[in-house]
Amino acid sequence: MSFNTFGHLFRVTTWGESHGPALGATVDGCPPGIALTESDLQPFLDKRKPGQNKFTTQRREEDVVRILSGTYEGRTTGTPIQLMIENTDQRSKDYGDIAQKFRPGHADITYHQKYGLRDPRGGGRSSARETAARVAAGGVARKVLAQLAPDVQIIGYMVQMGPHGIDRTRFDWAQIDQNPFWTPDAQAAADWAVYLNDLRRDHNSVGAIVEVTARGVPAGLGAPLYAKLDSDLASAMMSINAVKGVEIGEGMAAAALTGVANADEIRMGPEGPEFLSNHAGGILGGISTGQDVVVRFSVKPTSSILTPRQTITVSGQEVDLITKGRHDPCVGIRAVPVGEAMMACVVLDHLLLDRGQTGGVRGQIG
Amino acid sequence: MSFNTFGHLFRVTTWGESHGPALGATVDGCPPGIALTESDLQPFLDKRKPGQNKFTTQRREEDVVRILSGTYEGRTTGTPIQLMIENTDQRSKDYGDIAQKFRPGHADITYHQKYGLRDPRGGGRSSARETAARVAAGGVARKVLAQLAPDVQIIGYMVQMGPHGIDRTRFDWAQIDQNPFWTPDAQAAADWAVYLNDLRRDHNSVGAIVEVTARGVPAGLGAPLYAKLDSDLASAMMSINAVKGVEIGEGMAAAALTGVANADEIRMGPEGPEFLSNHAGGILGGISTGQDVVVRFSVKPTSSILTPRQTITVSGQEVDLITKGRHDPCVGIRAVPVGEAMMACVVLDHLLLDRGQTGGVRGQIG
Amino acid sequence: MSFNTFGHLFRVTTWGESHGPALGATVDGCPPGIALTESDLQPFLDKRKPGQNKFTTQRREEDVVRILSGTYEGRTTGTPIQLMIENTDQRSKDYGDIAQKFRPGHADITYHQKYGLRDPRGGGRSSARETAARVAAGGVARKVLAQLAPDVQIIGYMVQMGPHGIDRTRFDWAQIDQNPFWTPDAQAAADWAVYLNDLRRDHNSVGAIVEVTARGVPAGLGAPLYAKLDSDLASAMMSINAVKGVEIGEGMAAAALTGVANADEIRMGPEGPEFLSNHAGGILGGISTGQDVVVRFSVKPTSSILTPRQTITVSGQEVDLITKGRHDPCVGIRAVPVGEAMMACVVLDHLLLDRGQTGGVRGQIG
Amino acid sequence: MSFNTFGHLFRVTTWGESHGPALGATVDGCPPGIALTESDLQPFLDKRKPGQNKFTTQRREEDVVRILSGTYEGRTTGTPIQLMIENTDQRSKDYGDIAQKFRPGHADITYHQKYGLRDPRGGGRSSARETAARVAAGGVARKVLAQLAPDVQIIGYMVQMGPHGIDRTRFDWAQIDQNPFWTPDAQAAADWAVYLNDLRRDHNSVGAIVEVTARGVPAGLGAPLYAKLDSDLASAMMSINAVKGVEIGEGMAAAALTGVANADEIRMGPEGPEFLSNHAGGILGGISTGQDVVVRFSVKPTSSILTPRQTITVSGQEVDLITKGRHDPCVGIRAVPVGEAMMACVVLDHLLLDRGQTGGVRGQIG
Repeated sequence: MSFNTFGHLFRVTTWGESHGPALGATVDGCPPGIALTESDLQPFLDKRKPGQNKFTTQRREEDVVRILSGTYEGRTTGTPIQLMIENTDQRSKDYGDIAQKFRPGHADITYHQKYGLRDPRGGGRSSARETAARVAAGGVARKVLAQLAPDVQIIGYMVQMGPHGIDRTRFDWAQIDQNPFWTPDAQAAADWAVYLNDLRRDHNSVGAIVEVTARGVPAGLGAPLYAKLDSDLASAMMSINAVKGVEIGEGMAAAALTGVANADEIRMGPEGPEFLSNHAGGILGGISTGQDVVVRFSVKPTSSILTPRQTITVSGQEVDLITKGRHDPCVGIRAVPVGEAMMACVVLDHLLLDRGQTGGVRGQIG
Repeated sequence: MSFNTFGHLFRVTTWGESHGPALGATVDGCPPGIALTESDLQPFLDKRKPGQNKFTTQRREEDVVRILSGTYEGRTTGTPIQLMIENTDQRSKDYGDIAQKFRPGHADITYHQKYGLRDPRGGGRSSARETAARVAAGGVARKVLAQLAPDVQIIGYMVQMGPHGIDRTRFDWAQIDQNPFWTPDAQAAADWAVYLNDLRRDHNSVGAIVEVTARGVPAGLGAPLYAKLDSDLASAMMSINAVKGVEIGEGMAAAALTGVANADEIRMGPEGPEFLSNHAGGILGGISTGQDVVVRFSVKPTSSILTPRQTITVSGQEVDLITKGRHDPCVGIRAVPVGEAMMACVVLDHLLLDRGQTGGVRGQIG
Repeated sequence: MSFNTFGHLFRVTTWGESHGPALGATVDGCPPGIALTESDLQPFLDKRKPGQNKFTTQRREEDVVRILSGTYEGRTTGTPIQLMIENTDQRSKDYGDIAQKFRPGHADITYHQKYGLRDPRGGGRSSARETAARVAAGGVARKVLAQLAPDVQIIGYMVQMGPHGIDRTRFDWAQIDQNPFWTPDAQAAADWAVYLNDLRRDHNSVGAIVEVTARGVPAGLGAPLYAKLDSDLASAMMSINAVKGVEIGEGMAAAALTGVANADEIRMGPEGPEFLSNHAGGILGGISTGQDVVVRFSVKPTSSILTPRQTITVSGQEVDLITKGRHDPCVGIRAVPVGEAMMACVVLDHLLLDRGQTGGVRGQIG
Repeated sequence: MSFNTFGHLFRVTTWGESHGPALGATVDGCPPGIALTESDLQPFLDKRKPGQNKFTTQRREEDVVRILSGTYEGRTTGTPIQLMIENTDQRSKDYGDIAQKFRPGHADITYHQKYGLRDPRGGGRSSARETAARVAAGGVARKVLAQLAPDVQIIGYMVQMGPHGIDRTRFDWAQIDQNPFWTPDAQAAADWAVYLNDLRRDHNSVGAIVEVTARGVPAGLGAPLYAKLDSDLASAMMSINAVKGVEIGEGMAAAALTGVANADEIRMGPEGPEFLSNHAGGILGGISTGQDVVVRFSVKPTSSILTPRQTITVSGQEVDLITKGRHDPCVGIRAVPVGEAMMACVVLDHLLLDRGQTGGVRGQIG
């Protein structure tokens, strides 16, 4: 079944294909009275926008977001907010070849098998273009968070490209905005630029790992089991195109730790409990601890490449396929603002849920 | 908010605490007419049951499951199936010490902060005992799958304990049931036994990685974006206690691959498309390909250990804590049947969803 | 599909059949820290319990409710509350005859058509016995309301039996508990006793109309369109067995009113807006006005009667059917506490939802 | 909380205000491969469109629907279908007066109390204009039904205006399209024309009752309790603006029936069970019987009238209010296609749900 809604109380429904007239998101359940205009959202879309440097697809989309409903005189009314982005650069002739051929590693074949047909233009619904709608919705979530939980800060960044990870000793928050890869390691940025240029020249692409940190998330958001903050984050990040793994805190590396090493010991600070480490990634038992919430996800390499790969056609013929068109050599780069948007939506959703159930009151310590 | 329901059409709601009178699961949306008695479910509970060997907690629970509703004369009626497991070994005096102290790395502190109170006996709702209810529900899902999709086989196994991974060249499906770690690598089983014994003697614990493979899943299950088969699997596995990371196919390692290497090339076989590799883990664009669906998740080390760790009390005093009681040195072992159960629930849920939307008809190839 | 959950944030899932071992309700999303023991719930079950006077079924069920989870030391913990009621008087031999015959006006035939089988003992899942679970859950909702919105009072009463309505000029709140019909009109109670006795002697049954009033509901609960307070109430009441119509305020009679007559005019009182009438039944645009919320629903006559009716068997034979067993001549009587329970659940659910979205802040007037 | 989504598997989310740039509906979960273009939907919008005769508002909206996503080459792809209707006649100056005054009987005051602000232009989100989006979505549902269940026919009609009901002995299906009131009673149409003209001249408005019949609905749709076909229909109809009561079959009149009279007796016909009457309105135990599904709902009189009514302003001043603007004297007329649309959505949703759970297999009789 096609379920295109995300969230419990702050609910985002996205719609639209890569090459249709438009795409967008309906944001339902937004608190009322929040100042919101298009200019609040556009910067996030600009960050995700293609064609900004040579490392992203050269498709040129203005990605101008319009608010069609849910605000009055610049404030949210509590009713559904429709965010629409028109598709302007629909060069769909580029895709003629793949209408009948399935790209290896791409959703072409599964869409065909499930639905019996698909919109092949630009990947249709499976296009990374859908993430523009997520980014717009995430912008709304950030505006609400700025009012309800002003300490919350959400920052995404790349920590690995291909086999090349960053050096955490060089981690510099101020670097993130200074390079085309949104990475906190200036040296890695320089190295990756060379690496990615070579790959592109070789008609190849590569994967990446993105980390998103949410600082200032209050303790107590989340729930014990099936709507755990971490299971909702896992679902959110895994729902992004091309994501194949999600980690909270130590993530997969938690397997290699002992209980002694993994225990985030607790001391009493001036304003309450303080943890001496954060292996947990800010979440224990599905509920935020007040520490940084840290999520990582891997993005697989773009499957649309200029190197021929063996595949079949709709009619079952075996062929080799070279995918032309304008594709990102490392789609993980543009996943950074998308991961931030999903984090913003999940944190706000859980803030509203917690307020609903507990009234936002916290158990006292000390 | 406390959301204890999982699934879209095959919906499982679990309830109960470690040391209350009972715990269980309500299974709603089960197809009618499926043969189902307690004896179908008990073997799965027995597999998860504590106290079976020296590598799991010595708590003795019979874990006898009763079906209280939803069947008539041994067949499901289509109405809610209540599965209840009584708690018989509630030795709650063991937990007196931790009622006022927060175990580092445990949900004690976040429960307290969110709810203002908690059931400290055995971890209450955060106890791994809740997973008995998942295993019972997963048993129902397996019975339904056996009738609706008899080719589906779901097998879980450990692939890493602490820093020690299996050697995939020694992978032997027949080994899995032959050792206390459910691992397909006999040599690893022998090594882990020594390793874990030492750890336990040192009053320590350790993490693990579990892999679950579903064979025979038909192509076409899942959906493009927010109820992707992989995002639902991520949510399902991350909802299990102590899980910190989830991977599909290559998982986090997908970051290191190039597009050329990652492309699962396609050829035409006698019965339809055949893939030459399975980096995708059986899922493309959120929809199953017909290959094995492969999921891995990490389980952090048990936080309840006999080595003293620094922490605080509810009243804010700084103390050292040794957690007595009967705890698993590697809780990942018992997570194997739990991962299988979650896989069964997700696959069946998507089978029903797909039947609802498409009628189960598949797009033709060739 | 079988969906047995009701509510958005305060979610009630009922399970169980008339003649299985037990039935119950799982209450998920309950706020933490609310004092709750079985003795808080039992009075509501006793009110609904059969066999209390000659006007209800002579089946004898103790209807003792047990809390199996979700509380600790007499207070809710915020985790799922399991409420179980064991079935003790399972005299299922009474139902042998109807296992193969469909009672006209009963769910027997539709269950058979949909599911291919059914539990015929006492109507199985379609038995009014399921409402015991609703009443237990409603008791939890009332305890929470008593703490979060102590002004809320919920009172149900019968306003019509068969063709005989009450005389509203004799309406006396104090009468409601004084007669077996929960009616505010003492004269009606006397008349109905005679009427119902005659009907029963004639092997017949009859319908009824129940009204439920919620006083003290704060303004602002509900939502504009698809989760309107009134659409959720309509869904809640229509989900009760045998209900065929639901009205808010004027209800169906609103059709006969002009706009001039229907306008609930507004004046300014000492504590805010005051309405000069309540045609709206306390709800405008899906949102509570602060006036009494007034809902009415009709209950059809019991279909299990001793008068022969024409029907068919499972094998398609035409037969006449007399339904023996112990059935209520006017099942509407016992629907009174059920309607109250559903009102309590809906009001609390919307209180939590409102707190989630708006923080409970109200727009100022004056 | 603002929940603007309706349905379980065929899910419709509406968005938009009366005087914003546009409004619309996102249809998620639509089966793939269904032929669908704008011209399939426009006739339903034209039926609902204002300004078609002197009995409806003279606001002139073209109500042209555009499909922005979810189809490819004229067929549904299984992905979300965005239906957008631009607002062209936004004469918002008409509404200046009511920005500060609350119309009695209108949602103005409750929106203000809940959200602290509202879009006063044309009633904003509470405008009956939102129903255009429902009608568009209902058009999609009808197209799907035409393919999956071609026997289903859905017909709405007015059966009462003010105190004047139709005479059922004059019921003529062919009349429904022949008069501005969509009534099957030609004489009633003539009488109502005179009656409504007089009312309008008196600056008044009036309520109505609409009935919607779905013929050809297969037996077995629905579910026992909380997603009963009737509770979903009740929720659907009560969610329409201005609706105050919903009835299935006998509805409120079921209260006055005895069990003997209410029993829809069953005989065996050539193609299966046949019922001798339809007091049940085609639904027993929440599940369709195969008979006509019959729903009725009342629509209250338009609250925006030219007769002065007592009210207050936002600042708490007591004033008299005359509502200018272009309002329907009997908004029930235009509710007819809206009721049809909601019926189509509910029937299709349950068709998909049933297919998911049971595979559409029916229990045999005879």
